[in-house]
Amino acid sequence: MAQVARVLIDCQDATGLVYHISKVFYDKGLNIDNNREFVDKETNKFFMRSVVSGDFVIEELKADLKAILPEDAIVRVIEPTTKKIVIMATKESHCLGDILIRWEAGELDANIEAVIANHSDLKSLTRRFDIPFIHISAEGLNREEHEAQVQKVLEELEFDYIVLAKYMRILSEDFVSHYPHRIVNIHHSFLPAFIGANPYKQAHERGVKIIGATAHFVTSDLDEGPIISQDVINVNHRFEWRDMQRAGRDVEKIVLARALSLVLHDRVFVYGNKTVIF
Amino acid sequence: MAQVARVLIDCQDATGLVYHISKVFYDKGLNIDNNREFVDKETNKFFMRSVVSGDFVIEELKADLKAILPEDAIVRVIEPTTKKIVIMATKESHCLGDILIRWEAGELDANIEAVIANHSDLKSLTRRFDIPFIHISAEGLNREEHEAQVQKVLEELEFDYIVLAKYMRILSEDFVSHYPHRIVNIHHSFLPAFIGANPYKQAHERGVKIIGATAHFVTSDLDEGPIISQDVINVNHRFEWRDMQRAGRDVEKIVLARALSLVLHDRVFVYGNKTVIF
Amino acid sequence: MAQVARVLIDCQDATGLVYHISKVFYDKGLNIDNNREFVDKETNKFFMRSVVSGDFVIEELKADLKAILPEDAIVRVIEPTTKKIVIMATKESHCLGDILIRWEAGELDANIEAVIANHSDLKSLTRRFDIPFIHISAEGLNREEHEAQVQKVLEELEFDYIVLAKYMRILSEDFVSHYPHRIVNIHHSFLPAFIGANPYKQAHERGVKIIGATAHFVTSDLDEGPIISQDVINVNHRFEWRDMQRAGRDVEKIVLARALSLVLHDRVFVYGNKTVIF
Amino acid sequence: MAQVARVLIDCQDATGLVYHISKVFYDKGLNIDNNREFVDKETNKFFMRSVVSGDFVIEELKADLKAILPEDAIVRVIEPTTKKIVIMATKESHCLGDILIRWEAGELDANIEAVIANHSDLKSLTRRFDIPFIHISAEGLNREEHEAQVQKVLEELEFDYIVLAKYMRILSEDFVSHYPHRIVNIHHSFLPAFIGANPYKQAHERGVKIIGATAHFVTSDLDEGPIISQDVINVNHRFEWRDMQRAGRDVEKIVLARALSLVLHDRVFVYGNKTVIF
Repeated sequence: MAQVARVLIDCQDATGLVYHISKVFYDKGLNIDNNREFVDKETNKFFMRSVVSGDFVIEELKADLKAILPEDAIVRVIEPTTKKIVIMATKESHCLGDILIRWEAGELDANIEAVIANHSDLKSLTRRFDIPFIHISAEGLNREEHEAQVQKVLEELEFDYIVLAKYMRILSEDFVSHYPHRIVNIHHSFLPAFIGANPYKQAHERGVKIIGATAHFVTSDLDEGPIISQDVINVNHRFEWRDMQRAGRDVEKIVLARALSLVLHDRVFVYGNKTVIF
Repeated sequence: MAQVARVLIDCQDATGLVYHISKVFYDKGLNIDNNREFVDKETNKFFMRSVVSGDFVIEELKADLKAILPEDAIVRVIEPTTKKIVIMATKESHCLGDILIRWEAGELDANIEAVIANHSDLKSLTRRFDIPFIHISAEGLNREEHEAQVQKVLEELEFDYIVLAKYMRILSEDFVSHYPHRIVNIHHSFLPAFIGANPYKQAHERGVKIIGATAHFVTSDLDEGPIISQDVINVNHRFEWRDMQRAGRDVEKIVLARALSLVLHDRVFVYGNKTVIF
Repeated sequence: MAQVARVLIDCQDATGLVYHISKVFYDKGLNIDNNREFVDKETNKFFMRSVVSGDFVIEELKADLKAILPEDAIVRVIEPTTKKIVIMATKESHCLGDILIRWEAGELDANIEAVIANHSDLKSLTRRFDIPFIHISAEGLNREEHEAQVQKVLEELEFDYIVLAKYMRILSEDFVSHYPHRIVNIHHSFLPAFIGANPYKQAHERGVKIIGATAHFVTSDLDEGPIISQDVINVNHRFEWRDMQRAGRDVEKIVLARALSLVLHDRVFVYGNKTVIF
Repeated sequence: MAQVARVLIDCQDATGLVYHISKVFYDKGLNIDNNREFVDKETNKFFMRSVVSGDFVIEELKADLKAILPEDAIVRVIEPTTKKIVIMATKESHCLGDILIRWEAGELDANIEAVIANHSDLKSLTRRFDIPFIHISAEGLNREEHEAQVQKVLEELEFDYIVLAKYMRILSEDFVSHYPHRIVNIHHSFLPAFIGANPYKQAHERGVKIIGATAHFVTSDLDEGPIISQDVINVNHRFEWRDMQRAGRDVEKIVLARALSLVLHDRVFVYGNKTVIF
């Protein structure tokens, strides 16, 4: 039976890239099931994601591609296996719950290794799904100490991505640096509007007519990480800020789920603080 | 034939307001064709807009309402006549053009008294519709001098609202203070994101997945006036900033038209930097 | 402490209705916390929903209102208590799961009395939340026989609404007639497009660029019941019908949740096959 | 200076297509500025649109591509020149006006050869833009006779596409057959809902909460042509059908403009009654 792999390439643009890459696939007798490219004219960067099938050895395919590509090229050949995630949360259940329901239905395409939370509120919900819940209270600890405990737990786990499902603590630059482009966060506003604390209160005070949510990779620059997905919902003067929050929750969970699906299917390239999404 | 009026009331909330107001209508034998109320719990403010029909004298109706309302009450009884607007623009034609087409079709519910522009690019388009085009160049003038010329022209005109249809100059606090809640602007971003110059370039650099436009009343606080209408459109990594601008133009003109329609039909209350829209 | 009630009135329109109704509230010393009215000009029908607070006896308030209203008036005075629902489902878990998560978070404003399903797939998910799961297989039964069994179970339960959370069997006219305006269904298409079986396959074949979902009350006229809520999502040529289904599920669950919230808060009037939503 | 062309290829899918095509480009020293492919798994059809630049002769490039492609392949090599359109309309001005404003601003990327209308209402608007207006009244004529007159006028004109900008007459199968995939229509509903006359009245009667518009190629099968673009807008019970119509107009003109832009930039493939949009 044919093997399948996702081939992700990014490098400086050059004439003949598509030709050279497709020649490698062709010479190996591989089928291209799906292919998307993009060139960012501003930075002259080339991005390509191909799903190929056939009879091949991953390391060989990767080597053959590297051989014909510019030196700066990053080549990833990824088998479409089920990835592993760790979820971090605080008290609100809508994002965690949404992920759990998808997981239960076999539609998440990921295994949930554990839920780590700085409060115990979500323990009961998590346990309903027989998933390990690890409560690491931040009480009496400074950020450094708390993160040290979280990291110690993370070190025991095997995972591809950390999903911040309404984790309401700010992560330190040091913490983030351990997981580059591996932490996905849902921010409860339409970034870059309403950066910072309680965006719904800010939105209410500003009297906006639309609110939104943003899923992004976490970088050391708070609320400035590469955006993966955004969506919005109409509001009006009858919405108090808690109504905005309630309405916003539906957007948050859907936007996070969409971003997670894109990330888990290796559809996201990051460059600078931007993304290319195929 | 029955007379029609829009009655707009705002005051501190109190028990019995709806009763007292509807009693005035009832005692005068007026029909309520349309009625909407809202109480802002935070500030305890009451807003009501009724469309009434029957046989009445506007000034008497107003007096009778004032008599039963709290002292701070603002009561407006407005005949649904065609209002007059002055449009201010710069070089881009999409918003101006959209308004002209609506006007030509008899769907604007306003007369356009003049188009004032700081460049002459839109002269030909405006003239196609036989509407006075007044070019007031800002070249060689400081803001004060330029605005003085604009104001001199405005003084000669009779109008209810000024519509900034992509007028790309910042208006001084002094200028704005002459027309409180009478200047409607279209801002080419989803406020409060991307305040300031070239929001599309900012949006592109930030790598957002949605862009928007905001129509608002102009106040002395730049980009902070009460929002009337907002809308958004999806974008992706393939959009260069000029593509975002192009896509954004469609949102801008529709959002401005919606806001203008709300304002012209007296459906907008302003309080603080917020609006109530009925 | 003040009592609160939702007052819902619908009747033929007449001059002075708002006055007469607000006079009843005023004479009883009640506060109007929230008030919305609508007159359908076509049928000349009047709808009003007020949230009142104060010191009153529900039956007296109802009687006093009936006394001043036209004979055809339907007056409901409803205490804002937690309502009871029964969920009916088949195999898909996204809508059921979404409701369960909201319920767990205390955000559903309803108690779930039971989940009734014609397959056993959702038993495990339902039991995770300690909610009774009743499997009534339709195998070997005709519609009449199966519905008789369902109805027997329903008779043992106390509930305000039945929620069809992707219940994939058609209910008979007879069954529906027992629960007028008490069955809320989510239809997996943007009604009235793609009535009938497998709307996503139909949508895919038609090559549409947007798909949607519709929550509505179930009436004897299949897929023609009064619409409560609708929403849509963009798709494109890359979506196979199963991708449309996957994307559509997110819309379905959000639209159903919105409709359910409106229904549970007594915000929906039904007239003919339409709704007025306050 | 480098020449630019849009290369559009569609054929049965086969292994190595991307390789063979990109080899042709590479051997000729062409740059690929933009490249998109799609394979419809159901019909096993391959679609590719490349924008190439370099030094080449169009007919040679086309021949070289045909030489390496399956026999059924349709290859188009199109210079990005300004296309020519004829607009057909009836009485409503919003779509025509929108196109005229874009044309005036130099943003249409097309020349408008003429406006043909079965009523004279739009004559004044069209003339404002110095564009020929041809009134062909249908009064006293049967469909055949009227279309014969229209076709006679069209024969005198040179054009790439006919744009039906709210042309309210049904075109015969015979007429349509003369311009395969060259007639773009805006349908004032969210097809396939509300096929036929007065969709807004139908939508109002059905009590929908969202209305939409659909731009599509006209085929002999009325309202069933391949969909190019769709969009929607929220409505509620307060909308009478004329309000829906008014709100719908904004959607109609934007959807038509988007579709027109896609068509004029050769971004649309038609297969069966579907489109692939790059």
